[in-house]
Amino acid sequence: MKKIAILGSTGSIGTQTLDIVNKNEDLQVVGLAAGSNISMLEEQIRRFHPKLAAVGNEEKAKELREKVKDTDCKIAGGMDGLLELAAMEESEILVTAIVGMIGIRPTMEAIKAGKDIALANKETLVTAGHLIMPLARQCGVKILPVDSEHSAIFQCLNGERERTIDRLLITASGGPFRGRKREELEQIRVEDALKHPNWAMGQKITIDSATLVNKGLEVMEAKWLFDVDLDRIQVVVQPQSVIHSMIQFTDGSIMAQLGTPDMRLPIQYALYGGERRYLDGERLDFAALGSITFENPDMETFKGLPLAMEASGRGGSMPTVFNAANEKAVALFLQRKIRFLDIYTIIEEAMERHEVISNPAVEDILNIEQDVYDRIESRW
Amino acid sequence: MKKIAILGSTGSIGTQTLDIVNKNEDLQVVGLAAGSNISMLEEQIRRFHPKLAAVGNEEKAKELREKVKDTDCKIAGGMDGLLELAAMEESEILVTAIVGMIGIRPTMEAIKAGKDIALANKETLVTAGHLIMPLARQCGVKILPVDSEHSAIFQCLNGERERTIDRLLITASGGPFRGRKREELEQIRVEDALKHPNWAMGQKITIDSATLVNKGLEVMEAKWLFDVDLDRIQVVVQPQSVIHSMIQFTDGSIMAQLGTPDMRLPIQYALYGGERRYLDGERLDFAALGSITFENPDMETFKGLPLAMEASGRGGSMPTVFNAANEKAVALFLQRKIRFLDIYTIIEEAMERHEVISNPAVEDILNIEQDVYDRIESRW
Repeated sequence: MKKIAILGSTGSIGTQTLDIVNKNEDLQVVGLAAGSNISMLEEQIRRFHPKLAAVGNEEKAKELREKVKDTDCKIAGGMDGLLELAAMEESEILVTAIVGMIGIRPTMEAIKAGKDIALANKETLVTAGHLIMPLARQCGVKILPVDSEHSAIFQCLNGERERTIDRLLITASGGPFRGRKREELEQIRVEDALKHPNWAMGQKITIDSATLVNKGLEVMEAKWLFDVDLDRIQVVVQPQSVIHSMIQFTDGSIMAQLGTPDMRLPIQYALYGGERRYLDGERLDFAALGSITFENPDMETFKGLPLAMEASGRGGSMPTVFNAANEKAVALFLQRKIRFLDIYTIIEEAMERHEVISNPAVEDILNIEQDVYDRIESRW
Repeated sequence: MKKIAILGSTGSIGTQTLDIVNKNEDLQVVGLAAGSNISMLEEQIRRFHPKLAAVGNEEKAKELREKVKDTDCKIAGGMDGLLELAAMEESEILVTAIVGMIGIRPTMEAIKAGKDIALANKETLVTAGHLIMPLARQCGVKILPVDSEHSAIFQCLNGERERTIDRLLITASGGPFRGRKREELEQIRVEDALKHPNWAMGQKITIDSATLVNKGLEVMEAKWLFDVDLDRIQVVVQPQSVIHSMIQFTDGSIMAQLGTPDMRLPIQYALYGGERRYLDGERLDFAALGSITFENPDMETFKGLPLAMEASGRGGSMPTVFNAANEKAVALFLQRKIRFLDIYTIIEEAMERHEVISNPAVEDILNIEQDVYDRIESRW
């Protein structure tokens, strides 16, 4: 029986994780945490009987405590609640499916408590990879990627030696605006940007796919996860989203992982620590697919990728600035307060203004995040 | 220092194996064998200084002995010579790059002597898989595939468990006549059939690619190599020959191995027992490639594949009949004595006439081969 805690159980990755738990008798949920969606969390508690549930919002935690007082589930609230959940004695693995930098402290807490991490929170490695990876090594903890691209690379790396990696080839769908030029993106509406060609995901990540910021964040993450320099990570646009990513080895051989777009696969693969189990779902039919096409990313138009590369190259606190500025910009775009291309402008301005702090501590990262938020809010 | 003997050193795979030896200081050739090309064999002896060289043809062996009497290389002749080479004390691995059923006995001799096998001889497993695989297990010997498709599957299987294989997806270029219908193949000339779109190979295997017999032989081999039932092996036509083969696992994930068409990669991978070393050569450029296309094989037109499936399904001595009939038919076609489509007719007739012997011994296999040859010769 593998005991699992989920940070962010009411989101897209969280609910799909519960679907996997539901299908596998040797998986058990011992802890759940959500930000504020306590009605869904209540349902999950009644169905999966965790020992502990945490709610980021203290008020909502109180409300939930009242609702589920007929159950044995303990309810914790606020950041302390999230930290308690991350380190809870009963769990073996923490799924970090929460969005945003709020995931960093619970992830570090879980690592210190010896929990393996099924990592679906991008910000953790993007902003704090220099803290997380050494800590995981020190604590003998596995960081198991849940993102489809990193899971693909993780699967390709299975049985191989890291020193024989020549380069990582991270695939990208190119997003809904692939092929368009900058001037065609001036008038993009929120509805257009939310139409991802292949994957059904949360709003923030769907916008990040349209700007290629998401691909940039993945490159930054991959650098930490697989200990590969930035200049050996290449993005290949593959609009069908069939090849989830690849590794080219020093002998010229390329290993690729393919499949239908189904996040349950990387989730299950991570939950079992890189072991395969049966999973239902549609299989790829190559003859029906017909073809897989490739092109280079348009770095002139979709500046999310080159800006991410620049932030990663400058290192230290710069990835935090990149990420925080993007978060705020996407929120403003979704609120229809800015235009699509303003997202890039906001990121660029934030990065220009910032002086890099090398090796930022968690507090530095969180302070910088707040600073970036405040500045953008005062300006836009 | 890894010590290597090569059975069939003057052919396409043999010379490419020597190229790999040449590039790697920790590989050493201790034995070479060829059928009759003693002028090339002499050059190889002078360059690589093996302890033993064997020549299938006894007369040619005598000639060579005279030519290289100034060297320390011992020259052996005939089948005894090949067997001596296969089991020679100094070698750790035998590359079986000889074409035809003549490879079976030396391969078994090498396995009994505890040598790993870098297998490039298709007939060994096609006709004697039921003898070879149990013998290899019993002797604790590795069978390392050199064929690009089987090497791809072997690479995809790295780090995985065989029981999680759902199906093997063996890719096929479709050969030079892909897309044509049966009536268009009536007047095919030898020159047309020898033009393979992607790979530069020997004449026999190039014709086998055009008939899809080669893909059929690969399916038969894969069944033995990876212990997978015939109905879980699927052929996918992929005309660019970029994906060398794939495995679909029970979780729906597909692992694929890709690369430029370069046989030196599977050769090197096998020589190092599945470890990667640097290899020069062209790398795949996905943007320049543009696309990879897929279709189902045309089993109506290219009967080499369904006939192979049928022979494999009936088992026992039937694959030997399939293979021997094809060998003879291809020889007759290359001599311009029969037409392209007669190759299928000859195989079909031979299979119809044959009564299956289950579990044939090596002598049975060789006798059946001779019978099939004789009958075809008397008839065509």
